[in-house]
Amino acid sequence: MNSSLSRILKEIKPLDREAMAAARVRQDELTKPKGSLGRLEELSIKIAGIKGGIIRGFEHKAIVTMAADHGVVSEGVTLHPQEVTRQMVLNFLNGGAGISVLARFIGARVVVVDMGTAADISLQPDLVCKKVAYGTRNMAKQAAMTHSEALKSIEAGIGVAEAEIAKGLDIVGTGDMGIGNTTASSAICAAIMGEPVKKVTGRGEGLDDEQLAYKVKVIQKALDLNKPNARDPVDVLSKVGGFEIGGLAGVMLGAAAHRVPVVIDGFISGTAALIATELSPLLKDYLIAAHLSAESGHRVLLHYLGLEPLLVLEMRLGEGTGAALGIAIVEAAVKTLAEMATFAEAGVSREKQG
Amino acid sequence: MNSSLSRILKEIKPLDREAMAAARVRQDELTKPKGSLGRLEELSIKIAGIKGGIIRGFEHKAIVTMAADHGVVSEGVTLHPQEVTRQMVLNFLNGGAGISVLARFIGARVVVVDMGTAADISLQPDLVCKKVAYGTRNMAKQAAMTHSEALKSIEAGIGVAEAEIAKGLDIVGTGDMGIGNTTASSAICAAIMGEPVKKVTGRGEGLDDEQLAYKVKVIQKALDLNKPNARDPVDVLSKVGGFEIGGLAGVMLGAAAHRVPVVIDGFISGTAALIATELSPLLKDYLIAAHLSAESGHRVLLHYLGLEPLLVLEMRLGEGTGAALGIAIVEAAVKTLAEMATFAEAGVSREKQG
Repeated sequence: MNSSLSRILKEIKPLDREAMAAARVRQDELTKPKGSLGRLEELSIKIAGIKGGIIRGFEHKAIVTMAADHGVVSEGVTLHPQEVTRQMVLNFLNGGAGISVLARFIGARVVVVDMGTAADISLQPDLVCKKVAYGTRNMAKQAAMTHSEALKSIEAGIGVAEAEIAKGLDIVGTGDMGIGNTTASSAICAAIMGEPVKKVTGRGEGLDDEQLAYKVKVIQKALDLNKPNARDPVDVLSKVGGFEIGGLAGVMLGAAAHRVPVVIDGFISGTAALIATELSPLLKDYLIAAHLSAESGHRVLLHYLGLEPLLVLEMRLGEGTGAALGIAIVEAAVKTLAEMATFAEAGVSREKQG
Repeated sequence: MNSSLSRILKEIKPLDREAMAAARVRQDELTKPKGSLGRLEELSIKIAGIKGGIIRGFEHKAIVTMAADHGVVSEGVTLHPQEVTRQMVLNFLNGGAGISVLARFIGARVVVVDMGTAADISLQPDLVCKKVAYGTRNMAKQAAMTHSEALKSIEAGIGVAEAEIAKGLDIVGTGDMGIGNTTASSAICAAIMGEPVKKVTGRGEGLDDEQLAYKVKVIQKALDLNKPNARDPVDVLSKVGGFEIGGLAGVMLGAAAHRVPVVIDGFISGTAALIATELSPLLKDYLIAAHLSAESGHRVLLHYLGLEPLLVLEMRLGEGTGAALGIAIVEAAVKTLAEMATFAEAGVSREKQG
């Protein structure tokens, strides 16, 4: 196993149960009926467990948005042409994309990473270049990548996480861009979760019924041909995955190893989380599911991961847009725990019972 | 009918359909698959319809949190003693309550209004005093207030909205504080919607099964005794309502008359919306339901109002805490419409079909 990956897997530790217990005690001392902040309370306690104590907020926030291309688009499974991946990367860098706007809104920086686009964009300033290859190969005809490329993509993600942590990072959101990446994600989900392809395959950018049926057929063909080993997440990634998916798995593992909470976006990020949690089951405690994507399959995936989404806003854009909104909710939670007055401080009477 | 109320009812106009159509056109030109921002798109279009065009954000935001006491607490329907209403008002003013924290987080001011607490707190600086009386009367024994007091509470709310609008107000959230006010709200819901009391009555700050059954009995007694006229919302408010509920109904009407969007909080605010929309059905288009409260009855109420909550976070604190988070989501929506690049601006290829 690759050295940086094996090191990181050893560094991921359980949450700090003492810090969580102390946070729970403080929540129950705050001026409100017990439990009345619902999931905000649960989030604030989880963050205390990750950080090892009660924090005041997130000074440094980032969305890591990873882009790559997919050979399987030559099968005609998408509505947009492949060059849109490159065009959208430039849109991210110019601040005009959905994630650009929402990251600005929550005060987060966007870290745009070329994990493997089929374009020469590496000289763009502000673009982090971790290109593994110029897109994956067509998984309907051969393995999407080699085993070594799969490991390289995960390790590149770990490197991105550690570089951002070195700059200051208190919470990270994940995002993706890659024409064809819902196809790869559905294939990974079917392979690892053992679900029928149809159950975990959605309309992507807006396929109609016929196009969707065709997409399912292509994914089934790729699985039948490549026979990914469900018990080996790196094998699954290499056979039917994508470079941005491997990269995002690495970001999650790298962040968790440094006790940075990870807010995962929609279906693609969820698939990366699936691979990453297969590599390290402890990672799950560091993950927060931002939202339930409108992409069918995401619900099945979150249920498998045991994660409850914070938001249900029928979004399906990717890029980290859901993660950005999720980070805002998590920060709100953290601030209530840190800033609300206790009953004693405010001189408020407690309930008679309970 | 009271003059300020009748004036305001005439001033509430339908949404600007042309502005909404233009916003829809722009949404479909932005660099994302059509519809992929889900409810954010719908929100951005609604706000354009309220404001009469596309706006860049909300410079001036406020949460109006109205407090009052309820005579029905002498029946023993609550866990907290009545003085908590006053104590929490002071906590709001000192910045230590849940709403204080969340309003700061979203950059909103909190306007704390004494609509009728059973305490002498009117000399607090920063407290808006609109006290109609020192709490309502016990609705299990007589009408909670007179018809004239009910009108006065609504009109006071209109006054608060117009005073805040004069200071600058681009969006308003509503919030409440009042020990006993879920009891009044359930009574109003049962009266206006014609639902069984049990279906619209919840555990408030945390009643157990026995206490809940008793609360239902008290509400039924109040309805049987006072016989509120379901077709006359002011009559319902006067018989089984509360001053903060009337006040919040007034805030909603006042804001809508000046084309200010209203983000409503949980069950109490929803009940105020019920009264206000009975007075002006046009108001509904100006309302955004922030969240689904854990207080049972809220779901039934939102369904009756035809409003879909933005958030489901199991919150049940009131004060405007859900509304604050809702405003953040609405502002995110507005910013995506205003700031995202179009396909043409960004040089991004459009989908082949659809």
